[in-house]
This record gives sequence, structure tokens and C-alpha cells, in this order.
Amino acid sequence: MSELQGKALVAQGGGPTAVINQSFVGAVLEARKSPHVSHVYGALHGVNGIINENFIDLTEATTHNLEAVAQTPSSGLLSTRDKPDIEYCKKIFGICKLHGIRYFMYCGGNDSADTCRIVNEEANKAGYELRVIHIPKTIDNDLLVTDHCPGFGSAARYVAQAFAGVNLDNRALPGVYLGIVMGRHAGFLTAASCMARKYSDDGPHLIYLPERPLSKEQFVSDIERVYKEQGRCIVAVSEGVVDSDGKAIAEQFTGGERDAHGNVQLSGTGALGDLLSSWVKDGTDISRVRADTLGYIQRSFLGCVSETDAREAREVGEKAAQYAIWHNQDGSVAMRRVGDYAIEYFLTPLETVARNSREMADEFINEAGNDVTDAFRNYVRPLVGALPVAERISAPAVPKIASKGN
Amino acid sequence: MSELQGKALVAQGGGPTAVINQSFVGAVLEARKSPHVSHVYGALHGVNGIINENFIDLTEATTHNLEAVAQTPSSGLLSTRDKPDIEYCKKIFGICKLHGIRYFMYCGGNDSADTCRIVNEEANKAGYELRVIHIPKTIDNDLLVTDHCPGFGSAARYVAQAFAGVNLDNRALPGVYLGIVMGRHAGFLTAASCMARKYSDDGPHLIYLPERPLSKEQFVSDIERVYKEQGRCIVAVSEGVVDSDGKAIAEQFTGGERDAHGNVQLSGTGALGDLLSSWVKDGTDISRVRADTLGYIQRSFLGCVSETDAREAREVGEKAAQYAIWHNQDGSVAMRRVGDYAIEYFLTPLETVARNSREMADEFINEAGNDVTDAFRNYVRPLVGALPVAERISAPAVPKIASKGN
Repeated sequence: MSELQGKALVAQGGGPTAVINQSFVGAVLEARKSPHVSHVYGALHGVNGIINENFIDLTEATTHNLEAVAQTPSSGLLSTRDKPDIEYCKKIFGICKLHGIRYFMYCGGNDSADTCRIVNEEANKAGYELRVIHIPKTIDNDLLVTDHCPGFGSAARYVAQAFAGVNLDNRALPGVYLGIVMGRHAGFLTAASCMARKYSDDGPHLIYLPERPLSKEQFVSDIERVYKEQGRCIVAVSEGVVDSDGKAIAEQFTGGERDAHGNVQLSGTGALGDLLSSWVKDGTDISRVRADTLGYIQRSFLGCVSETDAREAREVGEKAAQYAIWHNQDGSVAMRRVGDYAIEYFLTPLETVARNSREMADEFINEAGNDVTDAFRNYVRPLVGALPVAERISAPAVPKIASKGN
Repeated sequence: MSELQGKALVAQGGGPTAVINQSFVGAVLEARKSPHVSHVYGALHGVNGIINENFIDLTEATTHNLEAVAQTPSSGLLSTRDKPDIEYCKKIFGICKLHGIRYFMYCGGNDSADTCRIVNEEANKAGYELRVIHIPKTIDNDLLVTDHCPGFGSAARYVAQAFAGVNLDNRALPGVYLGIVMGRHAGFLTAASCMARKYSDDGPHLIYLPERPLSKEQFVSDIERVYKEQGRCIVAVSEGVVDSDGKAIAEQFTGGERDAHGNVQLSGTGALGDLLSSWVKDGTDISRVRADTLGYIQRSFLGCVSETDAREAREVGEKAAQYAIWHNQDGSVAMRRVGDYAIEYFLTPLETVARNSREMADEFINEAGNDVTDAFRNYVRPLVGALPVAERISAPAVPKIASKGN
């Protein structure tokens, strides 16, 4: 057990998820129990709030307030796109030391894990004991080591419910429907649209992921084939789909706007969907072609949470505080899948998660590169959970009278 | 009470809603109870299914199946964009007569009400007793006479939950966010985004409706003002917003594609959002501007239903069968709001609902034309219902140490 007496600090970085507050509230409530922790601070706007000392004292937040925040999507402590370099991390460490912080728990993606790694190194160099734990979150599900990431299951559920609804809509009024889903390099979220299928002819009928190059020819001919067979076609496309040169197809529209991480803006525009629509309209004689871009709503919608995801997000936060405070360890909290379906938590070194990211395994993508496999369905099903009822009428056809002879 | 012995026929037309199946199931189950009704048929794909005799015998559907379908969004009997003229309506009547149908209940918007009106007239001219009831549905809430339309409350709830989530997201990572909402001529659905506000600075901060012309100058300066005050700005915009000449701003992008009703395509493209984004990017020095178009998902999302809406949709279906079978009447089922909040159902003549549509009352829109009023909030609140928890952290700020002097 740690003998470190001091304050704990929690913060949230990167894009919000529906359950990221479960994680920080889990960490806070667990830390507040400990006799080693005098105060639990929250930094506002992630690392930016640390270097600017924008702290709030969560020791004085009511449990009722924190439990309600836990149920609320998006980063309750607010977020940042700052990507700290070494100097920035030195400042973080300096402020932690100044405030007597001994436990730092940072919830974010691989960049946040890297920040944790550098801050931890700086503290070690200075001989200041600072436990640093990275709490994983991302809707993209692209972190290394862990079986999956908290936040992914709820976003995947939103995507599945959206495509399930669109499938019903498109059955009623047939045509081609393209849905553009978030995911720059990893297609997990787009792939989760497969959970929308219940009956054998349900959409999405085609799924295109950033892991496989998208050719205009295949795209148009795939859609034409499905449309000919079914009279309709629903397509899920990752915003990050690339051409045969590996270049993001969306890149040409964004005016080159880039964030601090050097990423081109993909979301917040309908341009990719409209381009893909024009491919289908120009390349076929199908007239009704519609494209929706799921946009920011898929990661923050109020009222669409996977119960499994909420529980796991809560637990990785609790485990973060336990690893730091009771076990005196640094690292990133990870999940191991056992059986079908249970989870074991473990701590992995920060450097195993920092910076790098994961894409979908080959076994999750079909050979034609336009759908997922049963292996992926088995992987994603427990994370999304059972969907609401989507039932078709089962009733016999009535014999025709007027057109009897036809 | 009616003494008419025969079959009942139900069908669904126009755009799907989340609760349209509640209405047809209400009508079917009520009709199946009656000794006057030998069979209850459903027409597939609306009026198109009638003239082609694509009937299924709902007398043989199980109650369990129908109750599950009632919970499923989008038109379970499938829909059509056919807009029947007189000849088409004569065919409908001919098929009804041929199959011994005496009760026809058609769920749809003002065009469907008009179809009901003409079919009813044709039956009267021919001296064939055919009871025709229009069951109202539309997410646009633009039918005359009725206080509001089944289907609107659930779509409004989706819009409110979407903007509530986006508000939390945008607080965490500030910028300008534009959300484009369905609504060609009536702004009710866009206006319902106001229900996303809980705390005093919550978005949407600006709401633009088709009932008021949108000038680029006002739009940009409104956003600039809010952004200056709050460091962020969320805007809800109807897809049908018009310029000072009354022309839809979206119209220039759609290539003039029109449906059978002569309506230009507004949904299924992100072009309007991207145009409005460019107005803000070009007209201000705000760099982070994002636009999402809520698209088809807002009317069909699986798992977002207003309980009030579901109940009322069910009841208008039940009442339709009761008016036709027990009271031998024709008309459109309507709702009258009494007190705060209860509903009385009544039947209004088909011609009072057919063809024409309703826009938002002046008292629902603020003087500047960029927000709704308290009167609208009171109108829409019971239709949307209470939203899921959206809580902010309440904790005191920690005194700064490093930057004490600042």
C-alpha cells in the first residue's frame, strides 16, 4: 500500500464520450475514501487547466451531484485539444508539486497516455513521488493493449440505433442511403453499424472502413448490385476512408484546417457524404440517394448509453484510484475479455499505450473489404448491448381480385 | 352505431415517424374487436399498395407481433410518396369496393387527408358507404385544427436530446456549432431544440426558423455577439430557412430534385450546413466552426420516443376505428389541449385538414427572429417530456498558488 500523503488530481482530455464522467466520478469517489488523500481536485479543460491552475475542489462536491454528473455525457471537467510537449509536461509536473498533488489520474486517448508518461518521467527525474494513471476513453476504440475502450460501446450503440432506425425508414421509402460515421484511422465505430441488422435483408448492406482503400468503381458497383437485388441500399462509411494512395478522401474538402495534433478536420461537414452521393447519382440511374453525416451527436447524444459501457467506464475510474493509492503504481488501466462475456482489469505500462494506436484486425473485415465478419459481430455485441424492439409485421398476403390474371 | 358490415383497411403515407405504428396498431386492434368487421387489411406502401392490391390480412397477425410493431419506429406497413389525383382516388375507391372494404383509415399528413377527402367523395357519388378516417401524423407538426401532431413529440425529443448532448460537447471543446433540423415550412421541430437548455448559458443560443427570413448579416453578427459573450455558440437552423425573397436558401444546392409533391430535396445533404459554416468562417475570425445536419435519423432513431407522443399516437388510432365503426363518421382525428396538460380527441371534417398546412404562431417566435418565446416552451414541454439527466459539477474553485499575483 502507498504511504504517500497528498492530494489527488483528475482531468479529462480529448473528445468527449457518453460515459467519460463515469470514469472520473469513479476515480473521485474512490480517492475520497482514502485516508492518504487530503483533497481531490479536478482540473478544468484538461492539461490546460493544470498549467493555469484552474482547479475545483471535488472534495466538496456532493455525492448526489457527482452521481448525476456520472450519468451525463461529455466531459464534465471540460476538455482540451492541447497536446503537451516536454516543456508543457514540465509545467504540469511543477504545478502538481506546488499543490502537493501525489496522485494524478488523466482520462483520455493515446495522446493523454503520452502526457501521463512524460509527466511521470519528469517527476521521477526530480525525485518527487507522483503516481500517474491513465484512464482510457475513446469512441474510436483505437487504444493498444486493452480489449476495448470505455466510451466506444455507447457511441457504437448510438450508431447501431441510428442505422436500425434508418433501415426501417429506408424500407418504408426505399432508395440509397449513405451514413458517414466518425473514425479517422480505425473503423470500429462504423463497423458497429452491423448491429442494426435483425432480419436477413436489413441494412447496412455495405460497410466501408479506413482499414481498406475505397475505390469509386467498387463503391458504385457494390451499391448498384445491392440496389438491383433489394430495391434499396444502406451504406455505412467511415469519415476516414482513404483512396488507393492512402489519402483521406475527405481531405480535399476541409481547407486543410488542422488541430494541434496535426489532424485534418473530418467532422462537422457534410462534404464527404455529398461527394459519395454524387458518385452514386452520376455512376448509376438510381435517383433517390441520400447522405447523412452522423457528426458530433454520435459521441454526445443525451440518453443513449450502453449499460456495459457505463459500468466499465465507472470501474476503470475506480481501478485507477485503487492502483495509484492502494498499490502505489503508475500505468494505464486496461481490460481483458474473459469468456463471453466478462472483464478483468489490469494495469499496463504507460509506454505500451502512449502515442500509438490500433486498427481493426484483419479477421474483423471481410475479404471484399465492404463488410465485417462474424468474429467482429461477436466482439462488438456485448459492448453495444441489446437494442430496442425493431419488429416487422407478420401477416399473410391477401389474394388479389382485380389483377387476378397477372 | 354503424350497421355497416365489411372489411377495414389501414395504410400509412408520407414520411415515417417514431410512433406511426402505434396509430395503425391502435386502429387495427380496435377494429378487430368489432362484430361489424370481418377482416382488417393492411395496404403495403400506402395508397400505392391499395391500387395494386398489395394487402396483408392483419386479422391473422398475432397481438404480440402487433404490440412489438407498435413500439418500432417508421412505417411498419411501409410508405409511399405517391400523391393521388382524382383518377388515382377513383382507383382506390374501386379496389375498396371490390374487396368489400367499408372502413378505410389512412395515417399521414395533409396530402393523405386530401386523399381521404377525395376517396370519400367518390364513394358518396357512387352511393357506396365507405367510412374514411384520416389519422394525423407528421414530425413537422404542421397540420391544421389539431393542437399538435402525433410523431412530432418524439422527433422533438430527439432534437432536444441531440442539442442537449451537443451543448455539453461544445462546453467541453468550445466553438461555433450549427445544427440543421428538418422542417420545410414550419419551424416547430427546430424550435423544440430550446428544450435542450437547462442552465442559463446552455445552447442552442440562437434558433432560426423558416417563418422568418434569414439574412447573412444578422446570422453572422448574432453568432459573433454570442461567441464574444460566451466563448462558444450553438445554433439551431431549420433546413427550410428562406432569404428575404422567401426562397429556400438550401434550394441552390439540390440540383432541383423534386418529389411527386413538387417539393425540392432538402434532407440527405450537408450542403446548407456547410454554406452557413462558410458564412461564419468568412465573416468572423472564429476558427472552430462545425455543422451537423440531423438528417433522417431524427425521425426514425430506434430508442427515442416521447411517452406522451406514443400514448397519443396510439389513441388517435383507436379513436379513428371508434369514430368509423361505432359512430359511422368520416373525418380527421384531432387533439384539443385542455389545462396543463391533458388531451381531448375530436373529429374534424376532412376538408379542414386536407392540403393546407400550419406554421408557427407569431407568439412563439421572439421579435428578433432568432429564438422562441416562453409561450412556445410551455406549448412544447409536455410533448417532449422530461429529458435524461444533464448535470454540471458544483464544486468550489481552488485558490491559485503559482499565478497568485495575476
